[in-house]
Amino acid sequence: MKPGYFSEHDSAEVVAARASEDADARAREIYRVLVKHLHAAVRELEPTQEEWLRAIRFLTRTGHMCDDWRQEFILLSDVLGVSMLVDAVNNRKPSGASESTVLGPFHVAGAPELPMGADICRDKKGTPMLVKGRILDTAGNPIDGARIDVWQANDEGFYDVQQKGVQPDFNLRGVFRTASDGAYRFKGVKPKFYPIPADGPVGQMLEALGRHPYRPAHLHYIIEAAGFQSLTTHIFDPDDPYIHSDAVFGVKESLMAEFRWTEDPEEIAAEEMRAPFFLVVRDFVLAAAS
Amino acid sequence: MKPGYFSEHDSAEVVAARASEDADARAREIYRVLVKHLHAAVRELEPTQEEWLRAIRFLTRTGHMCDDWRQEFILLSDVLGVSMLVDAVNNRKPSGASESTVLGPFHVAGAPELPMGADICRDKKGTPMLVKGRILDTAGNPIDGARIDVWQANDEGFYDVQQKGVQPDFNLRGVFRTASDGAYRFKGVKPKFYPIPADGPVGQMLEALGRHPYRPAHLHYIIEAAGFQSLTTHIFDPDDPYIHSDAVFGVKESLMAEFRWTEDPEEIAAEEMRAPFFLVVRDFVLAAAS
Repeated sequence: MKPGYFSEHDSAEVVAARASEDADARAREIYRVLVKHLHAAVRELEPTQEEWLRAIRFLTRTGHMCDDWRQEFILLSDVLGVSMLVDAVNNRKPSGASESTVLGPFHVAGAPELPMGADICRDKKGTPMLVKGRILDTAGNPIDGARIDVWQANDEGFYDVQQKGVQPDFNLRGVFRTASDGAYRFKGVKPKFYPIPADGPVGQMLEALGRHPYRPAHLHYIIEAAGFQSLTTHIFDPDDPYIHSDAVFGVKESLMAEFRWTEDPEEIAAEEMRAPFFLVVRDFVLAAAS
Repeated sequence: MKPGYFSEHDSAEVVAARASEDADARAREIYRVLVKHLHAAVRELEPTQEEWLRAIRFLTRTGHMCDDWRQEFILLSDVLGVSMLVDAVNNRKPSGASESTVLGPFHVAGAPELPMGADICRDKKGTPMLVKGRILDTAGNPIDGARIDVWQANDEGFYDVQQKGVQPDFNLRGVFRTASDGAYRFKGVKPKFYPIPADGPVGQMLEALGRHPYRPAHLHYIIEAAGFQSLTTHIFDPDDPYIHSDAVFGVKESLMAEFRWTEDPEEIAAEEMRAPFFLVVRDFVLAAAS
């Protein structure tokens, strides 16, 4: 191997050619493609040495912000839309199947399995909400034995894990399992918008760009069933003030849900609620496993 | 502002549109261009979620490797050819002017100014070398009062700052100033190839790609003169085993120098050396300040 020396115009090819042919083929491909686009960005921007150094320092501060409880590079990936794009290329669904969105950092494994209809709110704070619907296949048939893992922030925009000692453990989390009718049903509280952690380099970047750090109110779902692709998604409140500007780009048109304020005493009684509440009716359609 | 929601195919535009029009124009431009190329890379690679997470962890480890003495993100920029590309776009020289290359991490400000002809090797280790030449303008006229800051690794491939307590302070460093003839002259030792620090994430990446961490032997120069663009460059030994595969891509054809082994007693005496030595004759041409 005797590649040409580095020059401004074929820099990416010269750098890519250094990978050994004995190296793992996928590692070489990732290297080649990242170098190609990184060099294209440098060529287009023509950063000054000072701008380059500021980028180095930004990445360094981002790394130093990461610990067991904070992942600032994931946050960076999120606010640049990279996490959503990776989600998109990995979850192309057949027509009719429900769409996915980002998992987010607040999922907790091991939430308790609850009887259908249970209230996942353990501290009785917030405005009551009833969520119900069915888990279906793309032909419209109910799926028996689907496992539905739901979690949400409370009425102040915090997850239990962000308020250890304030909220009860596993507050606003639960796992449900459908019967042969595919139906699910649980009680929670109306969620609220909240900011992603904005006290680090990513927050500084958002501020420099005039971007806010808020995510619109949403509920999280992971739905799994034998013979089907698992679905990680949210549903959103279309009336949320941040619905058009989710800081992490998780919103999709198809993920809107109606949060209907329900105060008719007959309807309250029929749904076995004790006070006026928000009613959310939402089916999900799973794609067959490939 | 009511941009469209995120979708796989217009993701970069949706993300870029979030920057406020009130934000700094250059910050917005950098954001737009980086997002465009980053999304293009994701689209081309279609990373799995696991590959994405490995990238997050790699960046995190790279950040954690950085401290006051180690800059792993600069090293990453170097081995990906980004540092050289930034150097190239910032140092396009007029025809006839000497070319630049990377500064590297081992420059130290405040090296002593020495009389022309002095020996910068303070510990007498290594094979003697004499370096001489002239500092010229693009018309071939000598430049009076040019400041020449030179530094090099020793015959084992280490800079003084990497061997505190082993090498004397300011070993193999010196600053010289030309007279009206533009001539410079100093003694050093034949430099040797050396590895960049390879015990961190960047070293692991090079290993995964089947790349070695070596830089071919070289001498560093920063040359400054009133009325001229300053020049940061190296000269290289074309016989070095790594001359075609510098780990940081710093080599350019025009930066080759001849390291001529000189053992003729008359020539040794004429150059005021005391033993056989390597002779390097090298002029540099500075571009006029713009």
